[in-house]
This record gives sequence, C-alpha cells and structure tokens, in this order.
Amino acid sequence: MCQLLGMNCNTPTDICFSFAGFRTRGGLTDVHKDGWGIAFFEGRGCRSFIDVQQACESPVADLVRQYPIRSTNVIAHIRKATQGRVALENTHPFQRELWGRHWVFAHNGDLKDFHPKLVGPYQAVGDTDSERAFCYLLHHLRLEFASAPAPERMFPVLRELATRIAAYGEFNFLLSNGDFLFAHRGTQLSYIVRQAPFSTARLKDEDMSINFNEVASPNDRIAVVATQPLTENEVWTAFEDRTLNLFVDGELRMSASTASPVNV
Amino acid sequence: MCQLLGMNCNTPTDICFSFAGFRTRGGLTDVHKDGWGIAFFEGRGCRSFIDVQQACESPVADLVRQYPIRSTNVIAHIRKATQGRVALENTHPFQRELWGRHWVFAHNGDLKDFHPKLVGPYQAVGDTDSERAFCYLLHHLRLEFASAPAPERMFPVLRELATRIAAYGEFNFLLSNGDFLFAHRGTQLSYIVRQAPFSTARLKDEDMSINFNEVASPNDRIAVVATQPLTENEVWTAFEDRTLNLFVDGELRMSASTASPVNV
Repeated sequence: MCQLLGMNCNTPTDICFSFAGFRTRGGLTDVHKDGWGIAFFEGRGCRSFIDVQQACESPVADLVRQYPIRSTNVIAHIRKATQGRVALENTHPFQRELWGRHWVFAHNGDLKDFHPKLVGPYQAVGDTDSERAFCYLLHHLRLEFASAPAPERMFPVLRELATRIAAYGEFNFLLSNGDFLFAHRGTQLSYIVRQAPFSTARLKDEDMSINFNEVASPNDRIAVVATQPLTENEVWTAFEDRTLNLFVDGELRMSASTASPVNV
Repeated sequence: MCQLLGMNCNTPTDICFSFAGFRTRGGLTDVHKDGWGIAFFEGRGCRSFIDVQQACESPVADLVRQYPIRSTNVIAHIRKATQGRVALENTHPFQRELWGRHWVFAHNGDLKDFHPKLVGPYQAVGDTDSERAFCYLLHHLRLEFASAPAPERMFPVLRELATRIAAYGEFNFLLSNGDFLFAHRGTQLSYIVRQAPFSTARLKDEDMSINFNEVASPNDRIAVVATQPLTENEVWTAFEDRTLNLFVDGELRMSASTASPVNV
C-alpha cells in the first residue's frame, strides 16, 4: 500500500520538514518505490510535481525538499503499485477541475472490482482504481451541486459517496480544492494540529528536528495528516476507522462515520 | 506578449537544449518575466512545471534545464502578463482532461473582450483570456465528438473554433494531448524539423551549441515550434499568418487558413 501526506493551514506554510521524513519512505525506510507526487495550492493556483522514480532518489523530490513553496493545502503520495502499472498517468495526486477550481486527490488502499460507469466529463486517463474513484466522486459532486457549495454542505454528500466506494475495499484518501482538506480513513490515517505554544519536532525517518517556535507565528495553525505519524516526540491522533474528516484553517471541523450503509 | 515553445517528435526526446535558450527570454534576453511553465507528455501521462518566478531565476527552471525528461510532446510558455494578474492560476500551460486524455494549452496574444458563456464542465480557474479560450475549445470539441477522434478529423473543427476566437485578437497557441501537436499562428510562430542528416545548432540567446549527430538516432524526427527562432545557424520556417498546423511524429501533416470567416 501507499503513503499519504496532507497539510491544511490557516496561513501559507512550507512542508519541507514533513516532506523530508515522508520521502525517505519512498524506497529508503519503506518499500513504496513506484513513483510519488505532491501538489501545492497557492491561492486558486495549483502545481503538482510527480515522478515515476522512487522518492528517495528523484531529482524532482530534491527540488521539493529544498524549495520552500508556501501553501495552505498540500497533498503528497508515495506509491506502492497495487493496480495499474508504474507509469506517470498512474501517479498520484490526480488533478481535475470542478466548478472553476482545481481539485487534487490521492488514495491509499485497494478497491476490488471498482469499475463504475463513468459517463460524465471525468474519465480516467490511467488504469488505477484510485483515479476511477476520483472521477466518480467529482462526477457525482457535480451532479449534486451546480456550483461550489460550502464544505459543510459538501460533507454529507461526500460522506455518502465515500461510504459507497469504501464498500469495494481499503479507501484512505485526501481531497482538496485549495480552500479545505477532506481526509478519509479506511484503516490507516493519523493527524496532528500544531499551534502555539509550539515545540520542537523530531522526524522518525531521518535525523532531523525543527523548532516551530523559530519558524511559526503565534496565530499559525497547521494540521498535518499522514498514513503513519512522521515525528517521534509528538502525539498524533489516529482517526477512527471508516471516518470522513474535514479540515479548514488547520482545524478539524467535521468528522463522521462512513461505516454504516447509506441509503441511496 | 508571451513566448511559446513546442516540440513534437517521433521518439521521446529531451528538450534541454531548446529550453536553455528559451528560458533566458524570461527576464534576461527578453522582458517576459511574469512566470513560466512547461508540460511534458510521457505516454498518456503528463507533468507540468509552473512557476510565478521569472524563468531565468526560477529554481524549477534549473531543474527542468538539467533533468532530461524524454517526451514526444512538450509545450512551454513564458509569460508577459496582458490580462490577469501574476499568479499561479494564470500561468500557462493550462491543463484539462478530455475523452480520458490530458490536454495542454498555451497562448501568446491578447483576446479583447473574449468572455464566452462557459456552460459545460470546463470553467476557468484564473482570469486570463487564454484559459477561457482553452475552456471554450475543449467544450466545443467535446460537444462535437463523444470520444477521441483522429487528429485529422479534429482538424476542421478546431480550425473553425480557432477562426472564431481569432476574431477577438492575437491568437497564437499550442495544444497537445500527448499524441500530436496543434500550432496556431496569429502573427508570430515559426518551426523547424530536425532529421537526418543532422548538424550542429547554436543557440541565439545563450553561448551553447549541440551536435545532434551525437545525440539523435538516424530515424529520429523532431519538430520544434517557437514564437521566435531559437537557433542562429538553422533555417526556421515562419508559418503563414492565421494558419492552424498539425504536427504528428515530428512532421507537419496539415495546415489551413483561419483567416476567412467560417460559417457557423
């Protein structure tokens, strides 16, 4: 399975520290070596860096590691291929436009026999269950809302869609449009919210520490979501299995179960 | 106005040489300093690098310059803002999905009062005439064809759409889905086809030469399209004003005027 990393903040923040630990899991401290990718939102704009080389060796990852892109929403993914060959078109995060905004999606898991009929404008380019799930989500969100709803109004609809898809198998995902971050846990996903008083964090996967007092401002609030906790001296919270969670401005706003069958 | 660079080849080729000359026009040998971007197709996959820093100073451009990504279709753009502020969402090339393939678009020019009603699934994220033109093209292509047509069948439809849009002003553009490259000249766009026997090319904008005999194979054929010729010792061909041109496998396949009004 793959590794997910997400960030949602109330002020543009660089993700260099978390990414330093995360990328080593792409071939060095873990086995996820079938490509990787990261998408940064900067205002309404979005840029993705994706590579089929393993993250620990990728020159593109070197750049991301060293170039502090300040963003309020980030989604990153390291791939261990389960469905779909190792190819750029199968590399997360995936990106599409909906309601005049970019949407970014990454998935960790394995959806068995998930081949929905995609009749709308969102068609998969590659051959992963993940991209099909993303297209399915966007298609049904578009059917439900003619224009962008508030995230709180989207939440119950996305919850229903996630419940439906999660019936096919393991479905941990991150989804963002640059304004907020949805995080769905199937069986693996944890988070931490960093805010004042800040302390020093030490990476698990690399000999590296950061004192957030030196880099953050008193009002900053930063939520980091990851498949496995990235630091060893902070308390991460595991989401409940089968829950959809919404982060806005670095804060967990909504959480609800996707375990029970939803009438559709 | 902006600068365009496109490449279409019959075999995956790196664009490092052409990009070296091109990027210096982003702030150094020319005034186009409002961001830049480049999109590479690798099979069905596509990755874009975009930056709001000027190309001659961008760390992302350093990476692209040094990291030989081998691609059959590339579109690059250096921006001199005319419409839309300097922001990531206004940075070319733009990317959308149509018929299960990624499409990439970059524009040089200025479309006056071009505000089409975009009612379909393609909505502009930023506020440039260029992205609106791209959304308009994709929307109408999608209305015309339920699934991907051969480029020769697309050609007359795209010609009609380009004619319509070009009535609003300067409209030089590059458009690709990774299989072929459309190049429309309003008033500025030239190309060169490199094939055996290869020779040595010398950049105009930087003290750099390359002997293609040493890097290309006998059967390689590479078309390069640019706003202004990039080399000083090769013969570039200027397209006729107001023409749509189609490149496949490094070869100019079709060309037709978009100057005369088309009945719609």
